[in-house]
Amino acid sequence: MKSSKMKYQDLTHILSPKSVAVIGASENPAKVGHAIMQNYVDVGFQGQIYPVNITAVDKIMGYKSFKSILDIKKPVDLAVISIPAEFVPSTIEQCGKAGVKGIVVVSSGFAEVGNQKLEDQLIAAAKKTKIPIIGPNCLGVMDSRGRNDTLFLPTFKIDRPKVGSVSFASQSGSVGSSILDLVSGEGLGLSKFISYGNASVVDEVDVLNYLAHDKDTKVILYYLEGVKHGKEFIEVAKTATMRKPVVVLKGGVTSAGAGAAHSHTASLAGSSEAYEAVFRQYGFTIGNDLDDLLNFGKIFDTQPLTNGNRIGVLTNGGGHGVLATDAIYLNGLQLGAMSKESQTALRKTMPPIVNIRMPLDMSGEATAKSYEDALTVLASDPGIDAFMVIALFQTPGADEKLVQSLINFSNTKKKPLVVVCTGGSYTKSHATILESAGIPVYESPTTAARSLMALISYSRYRNKVEA
Amino acid sequence: MKSSKMKYQDLTHILSPKSVAVIGASENPAKVGHAIMQNYVDVGFQGQIYPVNITAVDKIMGYKSFKSILDIKKPVDLAVISIPAEFVPSTIEQCGKAGVKGIVVVSSGFAEVGNQKLEDQLIAAAKKTKIPIIGPNCLGVMDSRGRNDTLFLPTFKIDRPKVGSVSFASQSGSVGSSILDLVSGEGLGLSKFISYGNASVVDEVDVLNYLAHDKDTKVILYYLEGVKHGKEFIEVAKTATMRKPVVVLKGGVTSAGAGAAHSHTASLAGSSEAYEAVFRQYGFTIGNDLDDLLNFGKIFDTQPLTNGNRIGVLTNGGGHGVLATDAIYLNGLQLGAMSKESQTALRKTMPPIVNIRMPLDMSGEATAKSYEDALTVLASDPGIDAFMVIALFQTPGADEKLVQSLINFSNTKKKPLVVVCTGGSYTKSHATILESAGIPVYESPTTAARSLMALISYSRYRNKVEA
Repeated sequence: MKSSKMKYQDLTHILSPKSVAVIGASENPAKVGHAIMQNYVDVGFQGQIYPVNITAVDKIMGYKSFKSILDIKKPVDLAVISIPAEFVPSTIEQCGKAGVKGIVVVSSGFAEVGNQKLEDQLIAAAKKTKIPIIGPNCLGVMDSRGRNDTLFLPTFKIDRPKVGSVSFASQSGSVGSSILDLVSGEGLGLSKFISYGNASVVDEVDVLNYLAHDKDTKVILYYLEGVKHGKEFIEVAKTATMRKPVVVLKGGVTSAGAGAAHSHTASLAGSSEAYEAVFRQYGFTIGNDLDDLLNFGKIFDTQPLTNGNRIGVLTNGGGHGVLATDAIYLNGLQLGAMSKESQTALRKTMPPIVNIRMPLDMSGEATAKSYEDALTVLASDPGIDAFMVIALFQTPGADEKLVQSLINFSNTKKKPLVVVCTGGSYTKSHATILESAGIPVYESPTTAARSLMALISYSRYRNKVEA
Repeated sequence: MKSSKMKYQDLTHILSPKSVAVIGASENPAKVGHAIMQNYVDVGFQGQIYPVNITAVDKIMGYKSFKSILDIKKPVDLAVISIPAEFVPSTIEQCGKAGVKGIVVVSSGFAEVGNQKLEDQLIAAAKKTKIPIIGPNCLGVMDSRGRNDTLFLPTFKIDRPKVGSVSFASQSGSVGSSILDLVSGEGLGLSKFISYGNASVVDEVDVLNYLAHDKDTKVILYYLEGVKHGKEFIEVAKTATMRKPVVVLKGGVTSAGAGAAHSHTASLAGSSEAYEAVFRQYGFTIGNDLDDLLNFGKIFDTQPLTNGNRIGVLTNGGGHGVLATDAIYLNGLQLGAMSKESQTALRKTMPPIVNIRMPLDMSGEATAKSYEDALTVLASDPGIDAFMVIALFQTPGADEKLVQSLINFSNTKKKPLVVVCTGGSYTKSHATILESAGIPVYESPTTAARSLMALISYSRYRNKVEA
């Protein structure tokens, strides 16, 4: 990690602009500027839209168009630039004169293809105008509340997530867009998305700092290949992880991977041990792959923190109870211990074939009422800190009533709850309803246990630092 | 692992019967015997169906019904028994007199609820009649070719997979049915399914032996909580893994998990180290969770074996190239090395911005032709043993033509191929087509690398033992 960095760049106007100029907007569908403009129209951006094109005709997509940013003569918060790279630095200078407050440079053709001189000119223009600039060579940003969306990938190819509290930052456009595309299928709602490409001006420190202070962001997911400004990154990280969970997936953790990362975003990867040590010390949650980002994101987004690692497991399938027990101990958790009172109460409600022990295997005969009864008893048991509820919808007694029972329990917010559902289309349709109601659902006990451990580890970090 | 066992039980008539008697068949939808009978009718079983019920009316579901198995007076290959537990041993004896060749006892109420005496009577009846018996307390079997299906779970709750070459055995009904339910979503085709419950007569040795010799089974997936007959299991395992890959997921690998397994199926789990050592020594592929069963199953089902671990990575997203490189090295694989000839040929076909190195990042501009060109060149490169192709369908150039190009390459069967697709509905629809064409698709580079390593490790085992 190198240093040092000037002051933090403010991204407010880039993420939440009241007016946007699309520089390079075009009626020609082959142009990136067309896709960006189309997107602003399609997603229903709630502010002013000004297409800018040097060969502008009267209107572009029905919006009055301008030959230059200087011709608009009205306040422009954000300029999205998609024009040939060579014209970008001078266009930034014009943006400065026009009073633009933030820029996203989508255009590529800078340092990433070896054109360091042009990149330096862009950086010089940024310094001169003092405008925060994301990019170049990036997908840009998305704010699901304000419907600000600079992505130029075809809209039919990427599912847009619902409005929510999880923000996602990615140095890589491909990882960014594919995760964004996955998010909606996982029941996660998005607050902000930031893909910052070459990071010539706005970099990982600014992005983390912005998301740490963004009131609409409850959880930060971050794909990172390297850190340029180590000292500042640590400073910002300390603040960020005291405010909210930050899940980080680091690309380039092997030496070959680091080589690939250097070729990709010119990241100086540094030793993976050094990164991991820093990440752990400052309370980041470390993901090992793409799945972890989403799986950990779900639990942080919806469940209360807890320091305790004693997990109450309810199941309607014995095999899943065995697998859950293995997963719990392999991930540093333990099975909850039921009090005498709980055991007595459960013995009264459960049929004789049910053994009153953890995991509580209520058999394939279990119904919504079985789960309700067990959760009611165990919710106040001091020996249980969180629940892993296995609901296998293949059995006759598991149906939409069970879904409702789990939602009712979840709404009491008594203890963290995750649900494991393994199965096909019938199962998935019920899992979707659970996730819509804010319950994280996992396909295997392993993923559920990993996610619970992430929640607990972060909770313990917060407590330690606050103490 | 205890010993010892008599001779192996032959499961041929249980899996592939020409005629079935459903003992306990009923018009009453609340009865398990109703669900079983209904299922035989619904799935289109291709042999004779005889409903048997002691209070039989003339017909059940349109089929002539019988008061006793002895009244049928025609050959019965398989009897599926779903009646109160206490009547099961005497019914087995009647099956013996009627010349029945195999039995599935679905009924529960035996050792699993502490009724060892009744279980002993069942075993005694099996010995007396010499009929192979699966169960009691089990879901039973499915043969997708012969449409023999004893499952009594509601059909709308479990997706039935297409006919294929993967067989799945499970001691646990819940793991069995939920995995079965997942299988079809993963593009896998099923040959046989066997869930054998208490394993009182037919046990894990018989099941593995049967599947090892079944010509319609190319890959065996196995969920196992314990082994009763260690010596025989090893004997059969040696044969099985020389014939086909066997992926095993062991429940109860932690001491707490073993405790849960003992409570569940009365399995004597043994030390997990001992199991793992035996599994590795005899060429099993060890899965760590439910996902591994399916992920490894897919690659074994479709891809040729290879001893080499040098992976050619093509991508249209740089970040995924970095993650793939990490995953490759973290899983004991390495990046393929391109020959000078390949590099020269690629330099001619790839645009200047593409670096000719591994991973080959063809950028977000890549099209079907880019992938085709690269695969054509690298297919015969001696420095590459297998391919991990990353196809991110969010980019404009990735579409149904790319799907077709990958299928065309896959059909040449030159080298093992796995594809990574990360994304939402547009991506998933293309991934489904790839899987239907026999290409294993994974959502993350990590899973793809783990699955490639499983293929290569098994290949090396086969080579070592054959040498």
